[in-house]
Amino acid sequence: MSVLVVGSVAFDAIKTAYGQRDRLLAGAATYFALAASYFTQVGVVAVVGDDFGEEEMRVFRERGVSTVGIERAPGKSFFWSGEYSPDFSQRTTLDTQLNVFANFKPQIPDVYKDYRYLMLGNIHPELQSLVQSQMPTAGMVACDTMNYWISGSLPQLKETLRGVDVLLVNDEEARQLTGEHNLLRAAAAIHKMGPQKLVIKRGEHGASLYRDGKVFTAPAFPLQEVCDPTGAGDSFAGGFMGSIAAAEQAGEKELRRAMIYGSVMGSFCVEQFGTERLQSLTRPEIDARYHQFKELMHFE
Amino acid sequence: MSVLVVGSVAFDAIKTAYGQRDRLLAGAATYFALAASYFTQVGVVAVVGDDFGEEEMRVFRERGVSTVGIERAPGKSFFWSGEYSPDFSQRTTLDTQLNVFANFKPQIPDVYKDYRYLMLGNIHPELQSLVQSQMPTAGMVACDTMNYWISGSLPQLKETLRGVDVLLVNDEEARQLTGEHNLLRAAAAIHKMGPQKLVIKRGEHGASLYRDGKVFTAPAFPLQEVCDPTGAGDSFAGGFMGSIAAAEQAGEKELRRAMIYGSVMGSFCVEQFGTERLQSLTRPEIDARYHQFKELMHFE
Repeated sequence: MSVLVVGSVAFDAIKTAYGQRDRLLAGAATYFALAASYFTQVGVVAVVGDDFGEEEMRVFRERGVSTVGIERAPGKSFFWSGEYSPDFSQRTTLDTQLNVFANFKPQIPDVYKDYRYLMLGNIHPELQSLVQSQMPTAGMVACDTMNYWISGSLPQLKETLRGVDVLLVNDEEARQLTGEHNLLRAAAAIHKMGPQKLVIKRGEHGASLYRDGKVFTAPAFPLQEVCDPTGAGDSFAGGFMGSIAAAEQAGEKELRRAMIYGSVMGSFCVEQFGTERLQSLTRPEIDARYHQFKELMHFE
Repeated sequence: MSVLVVGSVAFDAIKTAYGQRDRLLAGAATYFALAASYFTQVGVVAVVGDDFGEEEMRVFRERGVSTVGIERAPGKSFFWSGEYSPDFSQRTTLDTQLNVFANFKPQIPDVYKDYRYLMLGNIHPELQSLVQSQMPTAGMVACDTMNYWISGSLPQLKETLRGVDVLLVNDEEARQLTGEHNLLRAAAAIHKMGPQKLVIKRGEHGASLYRDGKVFTAPAFPLQEVCDPTGAGDSFAGGFMGSIAAAEQAGEKELRRAMIYGSVMGSFCVEQFGTERLQSLTRPEIDARYHQFKELMHFE
């Protein structure tokens, strides 16, 4: 079954201990779509500027991602620039230019309206609701958000969450959203808001799924070198939703598999700058790492 | 097989969101011994003051822990007082009185000299070496340490580590000891110092075992309520070493089991103040939680 993602497609300039890139294809929807493309058919709804060329479109097409929903607007694409400390423990934003993204009003092309799986990327909750209203037959809706919307647009966010099946956030966002420090209590509070599945992403500490009183925890894959952590969470979400869409089910077994595939895609993402690694992957590499997770977590 | 632990036996005064206790039986060796006592025979080498009474001794004896090595000295026992922030994210030390612990020179009673498993608690590395020299036939030596010794007594600590099989530290200590932020690289550097097994304790994020290029990661057990986190790491070490000593082997299978039993004991420890929960446990409760870890980590 197919997955639609709505969110940012952008350019990033990034500096890490491993080097510097001035113009990387980036954005949450980009990372999500490329990661999910290894599992299922993916469509993207986003807006880009006239600086977004054929070269960038080709990256999506080479992964079989539908770009019908990538709207072009006069002006420049969303641009973010940041620098990581040598040990990656800190990230400094150097520049954020919303550009054409400032006026983004997602319109879902008819061709996507029967897509069963929907990912609401980290955009204004009102825009997330606008997308939901255009996808009334979506079977499973996942949603990302951030501290900015939790503190500034809480009523709208709560409205969005009522129609969401899976919320994917980090631990601080879950705590901020609920006022509960304990994550089991935060999960219970979030279930009451709507999402019956909560995925807490904890970066180098892995990720946990809360559902129906059950918890499943996946560690982060141990890597000797991280080149660029940007996009790891969005790649996780892409692997997670792509895997569920491919299974066409979201029972406990499929959800746990999806947590591992999400972790696999996040771990590949950070090995190179931007989307470089997500472009060059093969399905056997992905499945090999899935089996390495089994080894990493197995005990008798 | 039997385990000997050398370290602090103390009194703590602790304040958390769940209440306050002015005089708790505490200390790293206490938590370790009580946790390990559910798996195997345990002996303790420590020093206490004349304020340490029969009531405290009884706690050890009721768990079958040998107290022959708990030396009494004139003066007061080691005392620590601390307060946790309501969400347990911060701990403030209010008072530390070394008292009789300041002159602790561990002497291993003959009755312990054939114990095969040795835990060097977090004391001065020179004292850890002194213990090692008295236990030449120990089959497996584990060691804890802290930032204070890493920054202040590094040459002595490195001397100790040469004869250590398992180092148990937190992630910041592993990074500080090696100058490597990446934990795989930190593990490789620690293996070169001596310990062929490294356990990284990460509190609410679980624990990882690094050995022979392999990694095994156990999540923390999800708890609705944490009452007092003091002693969780020492209880982990007790469950870990106790389980290995009971198995009389430390292959990959036994080490992974030990990681889970360590996590189980750490999770019980924090449910009540001080050692209260470690005193009241039963082996079926421990094994039930071990099986809950299987559920928590299983995927197909």
